[in-house]
Amino acid sequence: MSRQIILALDAMGGDHAPGIVIKGANIARERHPDARFIFFGQQSAIEPILQTLPKLRDCSEIVHTDEAIPGDMKPSLALRQSKRSSMRLAIEAVKNGQAHAVVSAGNTGALMALSKMIFGTMLGVDRPAIASYLPTQRGETVMLDLGANVSADAETLVQYAILGEVFSRTVMGVPRPSVALLNVGSEDQKGHEEVREAANRLRNSNLPIDFQGFVEGNDITEGTVDVVVTDGFTGNIALKTAEGTAHMYAAYMRRALKSSIWTRLGYLFARKAFQQLREKLDPRKYNGAVLLGLQGIVVKSHGGTDAFGFANALGVGIDMVQHRFIDSVERELTALSAHVSIADHAPSAISVGGVS
Amino acid sequence: MSRQIILALDAMGGDHAPGIVIKGANIARERHPDARFIFFGQQSAIEPILQTLPKLRDCSEIVHTDEAIPGDMKPSLALRQSKRSSMRLAIEAVKNGQAHAVVSAGNTGALMALSKMIFGTMLGVDRPAIASYLPTQRGETVMLDLGANVSADAETLVQYAILGEVFSRTVMGVPRPSVALLNVGSEDQKGHEEVREAANRLRNSNLPIDFQGFVEGNDITEGTVDVVVTDGFTGNIALKTAEGTAHMYAAYMRRALKSSIWTRLGYLFARKAFQQLREKLDPRKYNGAVLLGLQGIVVKSHGGTDAFGFANALGVGIDMVQHRFIDSVERELTALSAHVSIADHAPSAISVGGVS
Repeated sequence: MSRQIILALDAMGGDHAPGIVIKGANIARERHPDARFIFFGQQSAIEPILQTLPKLRDCSEIVHTDEAIPGDMKPSLALRQSKRSSMRLAIEAVKNGQAHAVVSAGNTGALMALSKMIFGTMLGVDRPAIASYLPTQRGETVMLDLGANVSADAETLVQYAILGEVFSRTVMGVPRPSVALLNVGSEDQKGHEEVREAANRLRNSNLPIDFQGFVEGNDITEGTVDVVVTDGFTGNIALKTAEGTAHMYAAYMRRALKSSIWTRLGYLFARKAFQQLREKLDPRKYNGAVLLGLQGIVVKSHGGTDAFGFANALGVGIDMVQHRFIDSVERELTALSAHVSIADHAPSAISVGGVS
Repeated sequence: MSRQIILALDAMGGDHAPGIVIKGANIARERHPDARFIFFGQQSAIEPILQTLPKLRDCSEIVHTDEAIPGDMKPSLALRQSKRSSMRLAIEAVKNGQAHAVVSAGNTGALMALSKMIFGTMLGVDRPAIASYLPTQRGETVMLDLGANVSADAETLVQYAILGEVFSRTVMGVPRPSVALLNVGSEDQKGHEEVREAANRLRNSNLPIDFQGFVEGNDITEGTVDVVVTDGFTGNIALKTAEGTAHMYAAYMRRALKSSIWTRLGYLFARKAFQQLREKLDPRKYNGAVLLGLQGIVVKSHGGTDAFGFANALGVGIDMVQHRFIDSVERELTALSAHVSIADHAPSAISVGGVS
């Protein structure tokens, strides 16, 4: 598996760029000694920080550009303008074979739009999705779409199910991932038309996927299934609701523990437990959403993360390169397409050239 | 304010009926000495429990029926059959003026369908919603719809906003509740067409509502606004995701606190803090969802709750009766309708007879 992995980094993306991008790369370098980094961005801002990290400097290069895509720029504008933006140049470096994966903490919509334009989507995939893994009571679960597309028809949901399944299997190493659609009940007649139709297709398509039907909101963190599939509107709101609830819980706990001398003393004794809990649920550990369905590896870091969080996003990119994610998905898509029942009255989920 | 309040209880609804219904009423009786209860259901199951609670027995009566609506019965079937079901008789008791509010822990869909048929909706309301209040970092927030209708057009979302605002003001006592639509970003161009259109109408309609635009999933528990408005699919998933995340957090904390002798000792010292936390976030405290937009007070208890949780649902019903919720909403709807701009090109949110 050990081969040199080159990451193209949008050094100007995110709230604390380029500092956390460079410092994050330095943490990733320690974990993955084979990795090399290309920083795209303002040389005068990057260079001084890199000078302080000689080991990182030895495995990095800088490609200077003055342009950067603002966090609030509309994707359509980002496509037309910003030809020399740090984000775009980083994506193009992967497209041109100079790097294996691109990582950015910048504008999500622009990253998706540019990646889609430059890489193109995989055969049979109409709309790429944003996926991430989340902590659950039983380990980790992949959820998608987290906001690439606000709505998804049945066909798109089926594609998400396949992309999520392959990600869980090849990158996260789950031997036979269970997959379910997020819904408001487990009965067949519940939920939107699209969700019910997607369930029908997944049940009847002969795809070799362990499809479990519907799960509800609480099943996400219960870890009921390995892959939770939903549209980008619902997925984004579920993800942020979970984050908000964890914040609230932690805030209440801090307040309660400060309420008396006894609780403060208790905190001192049990400090290790709280540290464990914080580590277990540290959102930085889960930083690094992946754009699935593209012919290129693109990882989106949270815009507000720190160097530790950004290093985790780099780790996700490195994992995907090491597991040859793109090859795996394309092989799977081709193989899976053979399983799509030709007799199926609905258009097949995967229409790899001439097979289905 | 003190007048006798009579509650019609579906004694056969929920996982632990009729036990928790009767025991819940007994707790509610202690809190609200003016309340009286009518239990609808199997006399032979209710009577023996009531015999053990003489004080409750003195302010209760039983209306016997053999029929009960199963938890998995389709609403359409519940409308046609089950004319003598405990749920239906309880609703009819309110319609006939024998009771002021109905409370059930039974089949949600059937409760909504029967309530809608028997009470009818309020003038200007097309589709009633399910609302509940939730704990947040700053107090409590009302969210709706939690699953009455899987989708909602712009018109319906505007109606939800009004219903939620009036509930927050009259029942929860918030002087000028802030209201927002749940979305995937705060920018105007984000989200579904319906959500954006609803925001436009709320901004341009001259309604005297403190409309704050869009909030995201994390804003629910941050308590950014007093009323969060969304469609029933998203609302249901957000609510259950929040519940699941709180469970996960608590489970991890329990595990961490048991990990060593020191953490166990710490737990003993800080026990009071954990107790505070549990009480603060006790889901039973937030039990009692209300069906808004009907010409009658209907409270839905969680099906799996215990007597303490059911008592809280009864408390919600009693509060709504005491604050004359139906009168308040109708008065508000009439008043608000005067504010709806007639020049508005879109159909007005509230079409009270001839006014708008």
